[in-house]
Amino acid sequence: MSDHVYKILEIVGSSPKSIEDATRGAIAKANKTVRNMHWFEVVETRGHIENGEVAHFQVTLRIGFTLE
Amino acid sequence: MSDHVYKILEIVGSSPKSIEDATRGAIAKANKTVRNMHWFEVVETRGHIENGEVAHFQVTLRIGFTLE
Amino acid sequence: MSDHVYKILEIVGSSPKSIEDATRGAIAKANKTVRNMHWFEVVETRGHIENGEVAHFQVTLRIGFTLE
Amino acid sequence: MSDHVYKILEIVGSSPKSIEDATRGAIAKANKTVRNMHWFEVVETRGHIENGEVAHFQVTLRIGFTLE
Amino acid sequence: MSDHVYKILEIVGSSPKSIEDATRGAIAKANKTVRNMHWFEVVETRGHIENGEVAHFQVTLRIGFTLE
Amino acid sequence: MSDHVYKILEIVGSSPKSIEDATRGAIAKANKTVRNMHWFEVVETRGHIENGEVAHFQVTLRIGFTLE
Amino acid sequence: MSDHVYKILEIVGSSPKSIEDATRGAIAKANKTVRNMHWFEVVETRGHIENGEVAHFQVTLRIGFTLE
Amino acid sequence: MSDHVYKILEIVGSSPKSIEDATRGAIAKANKTVRNMHWFEVVETRGHIENGEVAHFQVTLRIGFTLE
Amino acid sequence: MSDHVYKILEIVGSSPKSIEDATRGAIAKANKTVRNMHWFEVVETRGHIENGEVAHFQVTLRIGFTLE
Amino acid sequence: MSDHVYKILEIVGSSPKSIEDATRGAIAKANKTVRNMHWFEVVETRGHIENGEVAHFQVTLRIGFTLE
Amino acid sequence: MSDHVYKILEIVGSSPKSIEDATRGAIAKANKTVRNMHWFEVVETRGHIENGEVAHFQVTLRIGFTLE
Amino acid sequence: MSDHVYKILEIVGSSPKSIEDATRGAIAKANKTVRNMHWFEVVETRGHIENGEVAHFQVTLRIGFTLE
Repeated sequence: MSDHVYKILEIVGSSPKSIEDATRGAIAKANKTVRNMHWFEVVETRGHIENGEVAHFQVTLRIGFTLE
Repeated sequence: MSDHVYKILEIVGSSPKSIEDATRGAIAKANKTVRNMHWFEVVETRGHIENGEVAHFQVTLRIGFTLE
Repeated sequence: MSDHVYKILEIVGSSPKSIEDATRGAIAKANKTVRNMHWFEVVETRGHIENGEVAHFQVTLRIGFTLE
Repeated sequence: MSDHVYKILEIVGSSPKSIEDATRGAIAKANKTVRNMHWFEVVETRGHIENGEVAHFQVTLRIGFTLE
Repeated sequence: MSDHVYKILEIVGSSPKSIEDATRGAIAKANKTVRNMHWFEVVETRGHIENGEVAHFQVTLRIGFTLE
Repeated sequence: MSDHVYKILEIVGSSPKSIEDATRGAIAKANKTVRNMHWFEVVETRGHIENGEVAHFQVTLRIGFTLE
Repeated sequence: MSDHVYKILEIVGSSPKSIEDATRGAIAKANKTVRNMHWFEVVETRGHIENGEVAHFQVTLRIGFTLE
Repeated sequence: MSDHVYKILEIVGSSPKSIEDATRGAIAKANKTVRNMHWFEVVETRGHIENGEVAHFQVTLRIGFTLE
Repeated sequence: MSDHVYKILEIVGSSPKSIEDATRGAIAKANKTVRNMHWFEVVETRGHIENGEVAHFQVTLRIGFTLE
Repeated sequence: MSDHVYKILEIVGSSPKSIEDATRGAIAKANKTVRNMHWFEVVETRGHIENGEVAHFQVTLRIGFTLE
Repeated sequence: MSDHVYKILEIVGSSPKSIEDATRGAIAKANKTVRNMHWFEVVETRGHIENGEVAHFQVTLRIGFTLE
Repeated sequence: MSDHVYKILEIVGSSPKSIEDATRGAIAKANKTVRNMHWFEVVETRGHIENGEVAHFQVTLRIGFTLE
């Protein structure tokens, strides 16, 4: 693994259901244009409130992918 | 949105089930006395352990609401 | 509670399913050798990606337990 | 000054013009309900973008006021 | 304890004598209007100097209290 | 807003006049190649000094834009 | 001192009287099982409140000790 | 530039008008005794409030200057 | 107070007795060469251990003084 | 330099030999696709261990480059 | 890798020669009692000065190892 | 060591070769005017890039020295 160079991409996903769902959605979206993603880090968890209830959870991810 | 002034409220919720549930519970409680909540930020995730198992998850939220 | 001295243990758990599951798994593992755990704090949430999908969530916990 | 107890209030103001204007607007709003404000601290500077331009600057302030 | 929702209050106390005294003074003051306080966290320790000596210590506390 | 995925771009702008001007300049530059920018966050404010005076203010921004 | 390798231990002590007392109590407790402690760092100061008064101060320490 | 050694000076300036003005004032003052200042970093933005209005903005700067 | 420019000095004091004593000792020492000190901030609390007991508490202070 | 707008790129390099080598390798790799790089900042230093020895050092860099 | 639970150990190493050497020395020392170490993170870099020269570099590492 | 008062000096050194070299250079420079330096802490590691290669590494150090 010592020869790899990772580039880091920062992305924000959201889901009305859960933090995990927001994470999976953001990674699925990134997967359409970025290959070889290896790891992620959750750097922020926020959300929006509508009518006194959680409308959606929102996670900011840093994603590492290898440059080919 | 540029004319709004938000006030921030800090609150801690907990749930034996999940981080999302603790978040929803805290917001439901705040909703009894605070109107016009717009967003939240999770600033801390902790929990208590009883008999070697998670007794409950505990989240500290900052909640933004508009002053009328 | 004022006479207790807590020691803090740091541990990393993971789960393909959720952050809560990763937390519970790490605590179950720690429970095999550590008694009297009282609280935990999530200090980092990361994960690995395989084939463009979340392979597992990974949480770093600080766990407080009393010295007998 | 050693006998005072300050309470801290957190508030978010915004302005299309400047950070200073957003700060002044938030304090003017707080002044309608809070007396004896003494100091503030800018803890976050953000903003919104519309049509490729800054729509407004948004500052989060912590404000200290004395309890009478 | 898993059903409680805590609200967090931020307050600054001061004392010419000690950090502990400044903490106790701030909590005594808060106790006049807030019930059911359970814990505090010291988030900042500062002070003022007069004539080359400490005039007073000043602590910023976050206090958690349960909503009834 | 719950279906959006934001990507975050980090950029540094500068201006001899003000922090707001440096912010607006950086966003104008980004606007030439990036569409659908929604928000920014100021993460660092620095500057250069020449002949004992501020030569320019320099702001580091994180900018969120939606992926189409 | 350049040949030593320190291991770091994290511990939480408490005292109804003072921060210094909580620190000394935690170190006395650690001293029963750990030898060659050299330094400590206070990383968190918290406490519990009972009946509107400080029940005890609680300090989290990182302690460095040499491996023999 | 690789042979320079910078020393860092920390200074606080204030202005009733703006953050930029407070920055310029602090640098003008430092310029009376320090030569060869090259850059600054804003590390804190605070201010005082009088009669419900901003009395002045106050910035804490780290300034780098070369040793001759 | 809006015309003052503060310079910040960083100093470390220690005392076998208490954090307050270490603070007062450091300020007394600084007072021999620095005039017009106005405030301080405790940025770090550490200490040394000898024979399993606290040998001394050590505080790092940032001190603000006005330039005449 | 006041007219430049920098974009920031985040990248992770690694080397079995040294932190400097990991830094140089990551920059050499970035140089294949990015022009006009001006500065970098080391934001994280980590590494992997194999058979009880450092397998490689791993540095996370933020790199600033000018947009043409 | 999703079934592993890592425990984290914190250790300080030093070397008169380099940061890398201090890291390798600390890991070699830990290797005498800990098996299955996988990664490390440098959390602090300090050092001592004697006669106006670096006497040694000192690194604080967090090391992750799997529990068998 | 409990009677000493340390003053802290902040300095930035650079070297085309290594972080250690930049550290040693900064300390050698400081040694020309400051006596009794005891320890340092690396608070920032940056560098400049020229022609797609590291031109030099740059470290910011906090240095503690005793007041005589």
